[in-house]
Order: sequence, then structure tokens, then C-alpha cells
Amino acid sequence: MAANLLKANPGNVVVYDISKDSVSALVEKGASAASSPADLARRCDVLITMVPATQHVSGLLRGPDGMFANAKKGSLFIDCSTIDPIASKELCAEAKKMGLNMIDAPVSGGVTGAAAGTLTFMVGGTAEDLDSARPALGAMGKNIVHCGPAGTGGVTKLANNLALAISMIGTAEAMTLGTKLGMDPKVLASVMNTSTARCWSSDSYNPVPGVMPNVPSSRDYSGGFGSALMEKDLTLAMDASKSVKARLPLGASAHQLYGLLCQHGFGGKDFSSVYEFLNKK
Amino acid sequence: MAANLLKANPGNVVVYDISKDSVSALVEKGASAASSPADLARRCDVLITMVPATQHVSGLLRGPDGMFANAKKGSLFIDCSTIDPIASKELCAEAKKMGLNMIDAPVSGGVTGAAAGTLTFMVGGTAEDLDSARPALGAMGKNIVHCGPAGTGGVTKLANNLALAISMIGTAEAMTLGTKLGMDPKVLASVMNTSTARCWSSDSYNPVPGVMPNVPSSRDYSGGFGSALMEKDLTLAMDASKSVKARLPLGASAHQLYGLLCQHGFGGKDFSSVYEFLNKK
Amino acid sequence: MAANLLKANPGNVVVYDISKDSVSALVEKGASAASSPADLARRCDVLITMVPATQHVSGLLRGPDGMFANAKKGSLFIDCSTIDPIASKELCAEAKKMGLNMIDAPVSGGVTGAAAGTLTFMVGGTAEDLDSARPALGAMGKNIVHCGPAGTGGVTKLANNLALAISMIGTAEAMTLGTKLGMDPKVLASVMNTSTARCWSSDSYNPVPGVMPNVPSSRDYSGGFGSALMEKDLTLAMDASKSVKARLPLGASAHQLYGLLCQHGFGGKDFSSVYEFLNKK
Amino acid sequence: MAANLLKANPGNVVVYDISKDSVSALVEKGASAASSPADLARRCDVLITMVPATQHVSGLLRGPDGMFANAKKGSLFIDCSTIDPIASKELCAEAKKMGLNMIDAPVSGGVTGAAAGTLTFMVGGTAEDLDSARPALGAMGKNIVHCGPAGTGGVTKLANNLALAISMIGTAEAMTLGTKLGMDPKVLASVMNTSTARCWSSDSYNPVPGVMPNVPSSRDYSGGFGSALMEKDLTLAMDASKSVKARLPLGASAHQLYGLLCQHGFGGKDFSSVYEFLNKK
Repeated sequence: MAANLLKANPGNVVVYDISKDSVSALVEKGASAASSPADLARRCDVLITMVPATQHVSGLLRGPDGMFANAKKGSLFIDCSTIDPIASKELCAEAKKMGLNMIDAPVSGGVTGAAAGTLTFMVGGTAEDLDSARPALGAMGKNIVHCGPAGTGGVTKLANNLALAISMIGTAEAMTLGTKLGMDPKVLASVMNTSTARCWSSDSYNPVPGVMPNVPSSRDYSGGFGSALMEKDLTLAMDASKSVKARLPLGASAHQLYGLLCQHGFGGKDFSSVYEFLNKK
Repeated sequence: MAANLLKANPGNVVVYDISKDSVSALVEKGASAASSPADLARRCDVLITMVPATQHVSGLLRGPDGMFANAKKGSLFIDCSTIDPIASKELCAEAKKMGLNMIDAPVSGGVTGAAAGTLTFMVGGTAEDLDSARPALGAMGKNIVHCGPAGTGGVTKLANNLALAISMIGTAEAMTLGTKLGMDPKVLASVMNTSTARCWSSDSYNPVPGVMPNVPSSRDYSGGFGSALMEKDLTLAMDASKSVKARLPLGASAHQLYGLLCQHGFGGKDFSSVYEFLNKK
Repeated sequence: MAANLLKANPGNVVVYDISKDSVSALVEKGASAASSPADLARRCDVLITMVPATQHVSGLLRGPDGMFANAKKGSLFIDCSTIDPIASKELCAEAKKMGLNMIDAPVSGGVTGAAAGTLTFMVGGTAEDLDSARPALGAMGKNIVHCGPAGTGGVTKLANNLALAISMIGTAEAMTLGTKLGMDPKVLASVMNTSTARCWSSDSYNPVPGVMPNVPSSRDYSGGFGSALMEKDLTLAMDASKSVKARLPLGASAHQLYGLLCQHGFGGKDFSSVYEFLNKK
Repeated sequence: MAANLLKANPGNVVVYDISKDSVSALVEKGASAASSPADLARRCDVLITMVPATQHVSGLLRGPDGMFANAKKGSLFIDCSTIDPIASKELCAEAKKMGLNMIDAPVSGGVTGAAAGTLTFMVGGTAEDLDSARPALGAMGKNIVHCGPAGTGGVTKLANNLALAISMIGTAEAMTLGTKLGMDPKVLASVMNTSTARCWSSDSYNPVPGVMPNVPSSRDYSGGFGSALMEKDLTLAMDASKSVKARLPLGASAHQLYGLLCQHGFGGKDFSSVYEFLNKK
């Protein structure tokens, strides 16, 4: 993502990461390195953050050494992390109180999409802030979707991935049932793909090895979106469900099933490997 | 279905049903009535059966008064019932031994599709038998899909509906989570429909009232495919899974959830009413 | 079981099995061998059957070469198999019509209980037939429970094992949660055993290695009641639930979970190994 | 609980509550009223807290107006709330740093046990602190169980209630299956209670109306421990499972099922009403 930003803004990107190697790699491509998150906040007008979890975003932005306290008035924060959307909403409100602007813009499309610059950004925030963010987002991704006010970028990502996990497992189960009962998996997939079971998991990312070329299931479930990452997103979705008492019976089961995949060594495999988990010999 | 057959074959359709009213209605349109299933078998070359459950098909076809024993050699049986696909396979084998031909051709598309003649037939059997069946099937439906040998029509239908039930519940849960967290359901659906959560349940049959016109959710879940029928198909899918030891964790939970819908008065509502069940006030 | 029968009735036991070794072993201990099930039926007044599945019982008892057709009028059949209780009820009714008596008497207590003669028999049938069966049952087991009319022996066994599977998994999950959060498993078990989580799975058969001596969990889950057998009983329970529309959401999930254990190599381990499955490293 | 404390320590109890009526009722019985939590902290050596949720305990104890900052050095805090056990552990550590002592002592036994002084306290903390707490705890409860270091009182309560919820649902499902298949529920319960399905939910709190007198199921599920409270404890258990990656497949399903009970109007009924939910007509 940073590499694509650099291509679009040569000489105009400042970077910070706890991994010195990542920083060096970008400096070689023309980025300058900040000495701390606060330093970075002082030097830039548009600040993009992407870290693993809610507490990391909070730690990065809040406090006297945080980016909020050290940013120029009117700066725009774009948080691309996938975190608790209720926390995102609170952070956006805090930014506003401090004279800053902020949108949440979690991303989908995976490592491949990041390299190719074809990511999708799901954006929560005001239309004005989104407009200011478009040049930066457009350098890194292809689809920029405005989901509503602050926090709704994350809500959309979690809701999408919840439905995705469930439909992937559902596709894997249907393919398991069909092939165990003697069907050719390609024929079964082709019928499902023109019928009511049609879904992205079946028609664009089929979990059965050999049904489609160029998807993780056809290269031993390598690449793609790991089961451990799906487990993490489902944890966030289940967490978010508590505060609003959303009842998610299949979501809860899908979350546990991906937990079992992780426990049994499938955490690093693509999340379509649930088919292999169900059919393990 | 019979009415469409009659349109295509005026004066050439014989009917039998335990409901005298159904028979009279068709006789008025030009059908002749058979006095029994055996009588019907003696009078026709192509025999279409459609009854609620495995034991009914078995009772209709087997035994000295059954249709098999009374059919002309070389007759073609087309069973459109949704039943245990292992039983279908056995019945096709018995038919063959008695000098008869048989395909299983369960149907999807609902009452609306049946009236409009736009049903989909999922056919298991030999290519030759399917070719002989095409004129009859073509009079009643639009899509005729050859799924493989005997029994695979039913396997395909059950696998499809298993994935469908799961993706419908998954869509309903994602929409529940998103709307409870403050999203506009139309916006959430539109993002999901162009992302990885895209599926028929979301983009063609959205379960949230008001998101799409002309679907059951926008007319208080009336019409469509009832939860009780979905529960029945899931029972068949779970049954079929046992003999081949297919592991269907979400399928089993979806089956129980539709069972609870039936228990709580949602059996006659469209199966997308799982959204209402999860959000009941 | 047959060895204990022989001890109680020396010189008065006739045996039949498809395994010649099993027959020889008993003949050495003083049993006579029957040449077929029909031969056995002709020679005995009390006939005990114990086979793996519903279709085996049906095959053994029905038909011209079956035990029913060849038994002396007034004989007493005791079926100790764990099978579909609705089928048991039908078989008992058929026996009565043929002038025979029959009870269903499935057994619990495992291989250890069988060897020690301490099995529990759960009996469905008339009080008179149960009284006639007492000498035979008393030779093989310690507890003989009258559950109600024909079929209820099997119903009781399936209901008991359904609750057992669920409470074993529940105990394993509670112990997993507690120990992962830093508790000593012995302390946690001792509190649970005097509180509302008290159950046989926790206080008599604890699934965590080292909490109790002399249970399968403390000998690498060997001996005991295999996960594959529990999966079989849960299959029967889920089957029986269909006809009466009993809603069993946790039962369905427990069934699938034991299916996954079998799929992942735990089928031959004791069913308390669900703890190991959840905590696998 | 406060009333029993007063009986044991007449003239020596100071109380605070946001409900003035609750305070007045205790003042009439001889308690003095504190003007704030900080006031209470300044006046007492042993401080008992019991509030609904983690954030309330945190709010009460932390900050310049909190009880920690205003307590005498060496005071003993006893928190009887059921909250996140990881938060309990952190609070105990903070107390220690401030020269205070603290144990977590969540309680089971319900409203009835509180009135009768027969509660069970599950205590996490040092043996010395527990010894100092015994007079106060002994005035309110009958069983005082030392579960281990700080936080383990809460861990034990959550693990116990997780297993309890699951075994209650399992018992309800087994009774549903058995009675729908024609068993007398009293007979079925009596066999289960002497067999491997034996558990507190079955032998001391049976969920089927009429099986036992004096339990909630026999008074239309009134009194007892509400489904909404069970749902709350399961939420805490599922939360606690995340940080340590405990896999709780049935726990997750039990949590969702109690969520559905709350959604469908069973929140105020005893948690054994899951039997009624499964059998609703």
C-alpha cells in the first residue's frame, strides 16, 4: 500500500513502522522515515494508520505522545485497520474535538490486492472528509465505498466478512455433501452458480481443489486470506454484536469452527480450507 | 405444472391425484382422469410423479398395484419429488430391472415458477432418458440441468438448498449486525452485493423489509418458499449426510434454526423470515 | 455378556455369531453353537439379540429364514441392540402378532460393565415380559430399569446419551476455559462438582488428564466409550427427533462435533477426548 | 446480603447505593448511610462491592473520587460482582500497588440464597486475604471456596455457569426427545438421574413442569435465575475465552440460544424455560 502511495506521490511520503526493515525498504523507494508516530503526525497533513488491533490504534493516536496530540489542526486521519467499529466511532469523535478530521477506511482485497493497488476501501465518515481522502485512497485501491457516518466502514467490513465466512462454510458443506454422494464437484458447482446457492465463495473462490484454477484451493490453500485472519474478524464481529444484542447463531458457530481450524493447524491456510478440514483423512 | 403440460400437449395428458378438486380442475382444461396410479401407468408412455416424501414415491411406484408393475415396457418415469436421493437411485435401478426407464428431476423455482413455466429441473439419469424427457420438462420449465447419473438430480437439489439456507441465514445475520450498529440496510446490502459477501440471498432475495421491492421480505414474508419447506429439505440433506458421513456443522445448526422457526409460528412464512425471527420484538 | 449368561446357566446357552472365533470361544466355555439364527430360534425359549444397527435387527428377525418365523410360540425376544426406537416398537408389535413376546433392552456400561456383569438394561415392554426376562438380564447386568411400553428402552438410552454427550462437551469446554485462564483443573473440578455444574461427566469421568485416576482421560483416552460409538448414538437420536419434530439445537451441534472428532482421528478414543480435540496443539 | 451482614454486625455496617430506597430500607434496620463511595471507603476497613458490570466496578474503584484512592491503607476490598475475571485480576494488582488488599468473590445461589444467607462464594485471592474476609462472607453465605489467586473466583463462576447452561439445555433437549417419543417425563428423569446423564439440571432443577415440585419449571418458570442473567454470564464467558483462545463450540451456541430466548420474551423467566422455548406451541 505504501509503495503504491509513493508511486502516486514521489518524494512526498513519510513512513513509520516498528519493523526497521519495512521502513528501509520504503526509504529505498523514496520515502522519508519518521522517528516516531508523533514526528510523523507533525510532518504530514494526511495520516494513514494500519495496525493489527483496537488497542494498537488507541495507543498510536491517544496520549501526549500520540498522533492526535501532535498533529496539525485540520489534518486528516485515515485509519485502515480492521478494529472494533464502536472504538472507531469514539476515536473519530475525539479527533473532531481536537480540531482534526478522521475517517475509518478498512480494506478488503488481501495481499494481492494491496500489491496491485486494487483494494476496496469501506469508508465511514463525512462526505467532505472522504473527498479529501480520495487522492490517497485512490492511489492504493480501486473501489472506494462510502458506507455512512464514522464507524460504518468497520461495521460494513465486519458484516461483510461475517456473511462471507458463513457462505464459505455453507459452500464447503454443500460441496462435501454432493461429492460424497457421488457428484462431480465441477458439475455441482456449475449448477449452484446459476441457481439460488450462487455466491462469491462458490463462483469466484470455490473451496474444492480443482474446480477453479488460480484460487487458493487449487494450490493447497496457500495465499489468499488466512483462517487465522478470518477468526480475528469473526471475533470482532461477535464482540460488536454484544453491545447491540444482535443474535448471530450461525456467526457464533462459524467463529468457533474457524477457531478449531486454527487449533488444528489450518490458521495459516486460506479460509477456504474449511473444506479440507471437513474432509480430512 | 400439469396446466403447462396440457397447453403443450392438448388432449394428451392423463392425471391422477388424491385431491378430486385438483383432478376436476385439470379435467376442465382438457385432461383425462385416471382411476388409479396403476391405471395411469397402463395408459401413458411418459409418467411424471410429484409427491411430498420418499415413502409416498415408494408407495406409488412399488408393489403389485404400483406404477412400475403396471407400466408398459420402455416407459419413462420422471420423478419430480424432492426425496432421499439414495432412494431415488434405488428406484431407478429397480425400474431398469423391470424394463423401464427413470430419471429423478426435482424442481426449483417455487409456486410462481410453476405457474409461469420457468422452473429449473435438476436431472439425474442417463443422457438418453433425459433427451426423451426434454419435451415434457420443457413444457413445464425453462432450465434443464443434467447433473449426472441416477440420484444426482436430488443430490444437487439438496446440496443447493443446504448452501441456500446457510447463506440466507448468514445474510440475515450480517444485515442484523449492520443495522443494529447503525447502518442503512440498503447501503449495507449494496456494498455486500459488490463484495465477497455477494450471494443470491443478498442480491436477489434480500431478507430485510424495504431493501428490495417484489421479494417476500417486502410483503411481510408472504409467498415464496416457506420455512417449513426449507426445514423439510434440510431434514433430507441431513439424512443423506449420515450414510456418507458428510460433516455439516452449519447445516445442522441451520436445520435446527428452521425447526425453531416452525415451532414459533414462522413455518408458513417465506424462509427469509429468519431475519424477522432474529429481530423479533 | 454371553460368558456371564453361561456362568448363570451352565450347559444351557446356545450361541450364534458371524465371527466363528467368538462362537468357538464360547463353545469352549460350555455353550452349544447354532448353525443359523433360525436354528437358534428353534432351539431356545429366550432369545437375546445384540447387533450393530436397525437393519441388522430387522434382517435377523424378519423374513422366512428370520428368527420370528422360526421361533416357538410364546418365546421371549430380548433385543439389546441400540437401534431406532420406532423400529423397535414396530418389531415388538410384529412379534405379538406372531404369538411371540419381545422387549427392547439396550444396555449401558461399556465393555468393562459387560465383563463385570454390572451393565444397566433400559427396558421397554410389558411388565410381564420384563419379569420373564429378569433371570437372563440379571445374569448380565446389575440395574434393570423398566422405562415403559415397547420402544421406550431405546428412547431412554438415546435421550440419556444425548444429554451425556452434551454434558461431556460442556464439561470439557468449562475445564478448557478455566485452565486456559490459569485455574488448577483439580480445584475447578472440585468446585463444579459441589455446585450447579455438577454432572457425571465432571464428577465421575472427568475429561481432563490427571484430574481423576482410573478414567479414560488419565490413560490417554483409551478404553471407555469411543467417540465413534457416541457419534452413532447421536445419529440415532437425531434420526428419532425428525419424526416427532423435536428441536435439538445443541444435540445437532454435539453430533457434528463428534463427527469431526471421528474425521480427525479421535473415533477410537474415548468420547471424553473431546477435551483433547478442543485443546490440540 | 446487607441485611445478613447487619444481623452479624449490628451498628457496624455503612451502606451506599444509587437507589435511595435500598439505602433507606437498610438504615431502618440499623445501617448508616455513606454520602458517596469515597465516603464509604474512608469510613470502613472491609469494603464489599456488588454491581452489574465490569465498567461499574472500574468506575467505582478507580480515579481520584474512587474507593481505592480514598481507602485506608491495608483495607480489604471484596468484590462480589460477576465481571470479566481478567479485569478482576488487574484491579487486585492495582489495589496491591496502592497498599490495599482485594479478593474477587462472585456469588451463586440466587435471590433465595441471598435472603437465607446460604450463598456460595467463589473466592480468588491470597489465603490471608480470604481469612480476613471470612467473617463478612460467613455472615452472608454458607460455602466459601478458595479457587486460587486473584481473578480465579470469577473464572470459576463463569466456567461453572458455562457448563450449567449447556447441561440445562442438554437436559431440556433429552426430555424433549423422550417425551415427544412417548415417555413419561418422570420415568425418564428418574432413569437419567441414576445413569450417565445425571446432572444438577436434571436431578435438582428439572426443566419439565411437573417432574419436581418447588422448582421454577413447576411454577411457570418464575423465580430462580433468569434467562437474561444467564445470557449475561455467557457473554462474559465468551469474552473471557477470546483472550486465551479457548474453543467453546457448544458454549457459543448456548449463548446464542439464550440470546434468542431473550429476544422472544423469555428473558425474565428462569433459565430452565429453554424447555418451554423448544416446545412452544
